[in-house]
Amino acid sequence: MKGNLLYEGKAKQVFNVVGEEEKLILSYKNDATAFNGKKKESFVGKGRYNNLISAKIFNYLHEKGIPTHFEKGLNETEQLVKKTTIIPLEVVVRRIAAGSITRRLPIKEKTPFIPPLVELFFKDDVLDDPLVNDDHALLLTDVTKEELQMIKETAVAIGEHLADFFYLVNLSLVDFKLEFGRTVDGQIVLSDEISPDTCRLWDVDTGEKMDKDVFREDLGDLMDVYNKILARLEEI
Amino acid sequence: MKGNLLYEGKAKQVFNVVGEEEKLILSYKNDATAFNGKKKESFVGKGRYNNLISAKIFNYLHEKGIPTHFEKGLNETEQLVKKTTIIPLEVVVRRIAAGSITRRLPIKEKTPFIPPLVELFFKDDVLDDPLVNDDHALLLTDVTKEELQMIKETAVAIGEHLADFFYLVNLSLVDFKLEFGRTVDGQIVLSDEISPDTCRLWDVDTGEKMDKDVFREDLGDLMDVYNKILARLEEI
Repeated sequence: MKGNLLYEGKAKQVFNVVGEEEKLILSYKNDATAFNGKKKESFVGKGRYNNLISAKIFNYLHEKGIPTHFEKGLNETEQLVKKTTIIPLEVVVRRIAAGSITRRLPIKEKTPFIPPLVELFFKDDVLDDPLVNDDHALLLTDVTKEELQMIKETAVAIGEHLADFFYLVNLSLVDFKLEFGRTVDGQIVLSDEISPDTCRLWDVDTGEKMDKDVFREDLGDLMDVYNKILARLEEI
Repeated sequence: MKGNLLYEGKAKQVFNVVGEEEKLILSYKNDATAFNGKKKESFVGKGRYNNLISAKIFNYLHEKGIPTHFEKGLNETEQLVKKTTIIPLEVVVRRIAAGSITRRLPIKEKTPFIPPLVELFFKDDVLDDPLVNDDHALLLTDVTKEELQMIKETAVAIGEHLADFFYLVNLSLVDFKLEFGRTVDGQIVLSDEISPDTCRLWDVDTGEKMDKDVFREDLGDLMDVYNKILARLEEI
């Protein structure tokens, strides 16, 4: 049974679970935000798409042996997860150059990264989620050097699984953002969500952008795109 | 004999040496620049101070076994060095928090970093010398993973020597920037300069800033400060 609201983020609400101290309920909102919240809009149905897509992906990763916070879907917009303390790092894995890296560094869009490139950003809205290196991450979080190495290696491994998964539905995985959390017993597991909000996905045949860039760059009907992704994933 | 001008940077001119293909002459200018060249001023005597101070420091590091490009001082503003191809990374070692890191990250000025924190910036004026992580550095330069590790470890070791050296003249080493270059035979050595332009130095007793921050922050007579540092170093 859903308990009190613990935290409200840009895209999700987090609730306690009555009688289950070590669980949380994630409730996906209809809000889309970009550019650290400077652009914001609400889309009917978005919470449902993100919840259902993320649940499918976490189930797939679980099958592949990746430890995650995901327990089960509860309804169209909510899922049950293990309670974790989020490690305040956005772990970005880039397989093909797109987005901010092409503006920060002399790297052209569509340059393939082999092996994939891993970036860490410190989660801090006031400071605009700055890029950090490993030394900064160790200083600013409670993870050890070995844990940070494990997180980065796990992120790359997750990328291989995700790329395979999306390729089944004719989508090319360009880059994605992960968050990790520490469970009550200290284990570090994949947390947060994986969805077209957190992945860049390009149609393999047409190159069409099929992710939150549609919202960032005003390219079309965001919910139409998310609906197509869910429909493709439901066919697997 | 000084050959033709090969390159002119913000603080130095670089000349070929007639008949000595593997050597260069560094000629220190009187210009001070800050904020990626947005603030600029010329100070009579600055080239002399930087040349003489940097020569003293490179001699000290040579005695401590650090491989460097430095060969010998030629006159008050010039020095002979081994020709190197500069690796386009600014290697910053921070022992105490000051400057940009206190604005980028939630770290208060004067926080000690134990062990010292190493940052890499990609040398690119147009992109404003962006912070990079190891993956970026490997992608954007010709250094190998092992060489990058060696560069970072050498930078920290240099920091220990520099801190000892400056402490002899009552200066606390806060942070510093190094550049490394590859000699004609492929060896990576410490290059560029080490001076109050590239180090933050605080007087041990008074905490007074005795480096280029005096120029950045308009704190007083920059040449008076550089003169004091040279005078203290000449007493060792």
